[in-house]
Amino acid sequence: MIRAALDAMGADGGIAPLVEGAAQLSLEDVPIHTMLVGDQAAIAECLRRTRHDPTRVSIIPADGFVAMNEKPATGLDARPDCSVLTAARLVATGEAAVLVSAGNTGAVILGASRTFERLEGVKRVALCAVHPTVEPHGPKGDPFGLMLDVGATLQCSAEELTAFARMGSCYSRLVSDIEAPRVALLSNGSEPTKGTEAVIAAHRALAEADDLRFIGNVEGLDIPRGTADVVVCEGFVGNIVLKMLEGVSDAALGLAKHAGAARLRYRLGLALLSSGLRRIRELTDWKQYGGAPILGFDRAVIKAHGRSNARAIRNALRLAGKTVQRELVPQLRISLAAKTAHPRTAPSSPH
Amino acid sequence: MIRAALDAMGADGGIAPLVEGAAQLSLEDVPIHTMLVGDQAAIAECLRRTRHDPTRVSIIPADGFVAMNEKPATGLDARPDCSVLTAARLVATGEAAVLVSAGNTGAVILGASRTFERLEGVKRVALCAVHPTVEPHGPKGDPFGLMLDVGATLQCSAEELTAFARMGSCYSRLVSDIEAPRVALLSNGSEPTKGTEAVIAAHRALAEADDLRFIGNVEGLDIPRGTADVVVCEGFVGNIVLKMLEGVSDAALGLAKHAGAARLRYRLGLALLSSGLRRIRELTDWKQYGGAPILGFDRAVIKAHGRSNARAIRNALRLAGKTVQRELVPQLRISLAAKTAHPRTAPSSPH
Repeated sequence: MIRAALDAMGADGGIAPLVEGAAQLSLEDVPIHTMLVGDQAAIAECLRRTRHDPTRVSIIPADGFVAMNEKPATGLDARPDCSVLTAARLVATGEAAVLVSAGNTGAVILGASRTFERLEGVKRVALCAVHPTVEPHGPKGDPFGLMLDVGATLQCSAEELTAFARMGSCYSRLVSDIEAPRVALLSNGSEPTKGTEAVIAAHRALAEADDLRFIGNVEGLDIPRGTADVVVCEGFVGNIVLKMLEGVSDAALGLAKHAGAARLRYRLGLALLSSGLRRIRELTDWKQYGGAPILGFDRAVIKAHGRSNARAIRNALRLAGKTVQRELVPQLRISLAAKTAHPRTAPSSPH
Repeated sequence: MIRAALDAMGADGGIAPLVEGAAQLSLEDVPIHTMLVGDQAAIAECLRRTRHDPTRVSIIPADGFVAMNEKPATGLDARPDCSVLTAARLVATGEAAVLVSAGNTGAVILGASRTFERLEGVKRVALCAVHPTVEPHGPKGDPFGLMLDVGATLQCSAEELTAFARMGSCYSRLVSDIEAPRVALLSNGSEPTKGTEAVIAAHRALAEADDLRFIGNVEGLDIPRGTADVVVCEGFVGNIVLKMLEGVSDAALGLAKHAGAARLRYRLGLALLSSGLRRIRELTDWKQYGGAPILGFDRAVIKAHGRSNARAIRNALRLAGKTVQRELVPQLRISLAAKTAHPRTAPSSPH
């Protein structure tokens, strides 16, 4: 049985979707036990009203939580036994195998930084996100690509970008079953000479690496296209790109809703188109589904979207279980060690 | 009569759309004379086949051009009398009032840099682009926002970002008739403390400026929404964002085309939806319409998209005429001088 510590507080929808997601999962044939960390009375009350398997969920009391708009450091300093820190400690001590949170992203990263160690070779951690693409990925035809970093490390050195590339590749291989994920650097042109200094230097290092499938630089238009399985960039750029995708999808959903209220002829068209629109809606509503990891710690951490509904939390917990089953952290260690196992040759020497 | 020097070579569609765009405009009641700069024989041949007013177009011979995939410096060095340099020289000497090109963007920027001076207070120039937004802008309900820089200056200092903000505001005011354009910095959060060092410092400087309407930072999701009239960012980020928007729109068009080949029920739905789709197509096909300026030179420069059709070239030439009529360059000088006219107070002093 895999024990997952779920920060059961501080998501946009309050406690309910978190408890209901864990309750849903407890009734499924998946070897995951969810430790609900937070306000004991409120969680117990919510759990009472929700069908669940009591042997698969438990409550761990915590004192307060970091609110969405609160400054992470301020919140964590003021409440040392808040839900995310309590949940992280369960993982640090081994009482749980993975941390899952849909709360304040900065607080999750900072809370994990204060509780876990970083893996060897990792100076800064990376927050991953999935985004919808036109091209499918891997043997399962996954319609989502992986991007990192999307906000944990605003500005990155070349070394940090290459570590992100290795970790992203490892995660994609383990979780999406892609044997050799196509890894790319996000830049302003495909040529190796395009980009910031850090991107150019990371390109040089990755082009020489034989432990991952580096396909070079990709540009902005490759993101929706899905040219790469793993897109690597600094957090400042990744955050803007990801939020822009959310904005575009919100705009598309807004258009669709607006259409519903419009003329009959329009609505009739929409009804006839419904199967096609369902696909668009699936793609644009991706942020409701599951979560993505924060990579670089010596413990597994899954960040679910703050707007997650019960289904999304259930999916995030399943994903968390998968990262434990597939030994994400030990595999990340192996991937990160690759750069020393294959010492780099000088750029001018043939190989 | 405003004389526009049109680099008539090197666009994706060859000479035809450039000559046809100028020919179209020559028949309209607009006081613009287009100087078609390039391969004299080919342009004359194309012009012969196209209805035009011969008093409103002329041909200026040039020797070769910089191809789309050519390195700008290599191309310009090899062909000192190429179309873009010849056109720029016409503007430098005053024979033409504005430069218009749909060719290799890097070559236009570098060619202009080698031929024109930069305005006082401008260290690096900015390439602007327009992007479709949900919210309209200004009194004309313009469905496009302005973004700069989108690739001329990859990494920017705070000073460069603030100069871009002033120039973008000035351009938006003159060309979109927005009295006080809402100017924003693109960042990973709305708080003044969010962003790279340069963004944070630029935020501080702009918050104190009383010569423009700075609305603070905007995030990725504000780009499609259209919260700001002018979005300011460094070229690396702007280039990725802009190309991603093109990718998203291509993906949307691809979906629509794919749908056309699909089941009858689907096609019927599309037909009924056509008025709504037309609006989406307009928005997603924005890159075919007009051009955007390169700001910071002491001469007016309009860059049209490489994929421009004749209509887009005609629009870019009209826009070029407007920048001359409304005295863009003198107005930019005044805007850039504002920072010295209103000396900044120290952050801690009240004002």
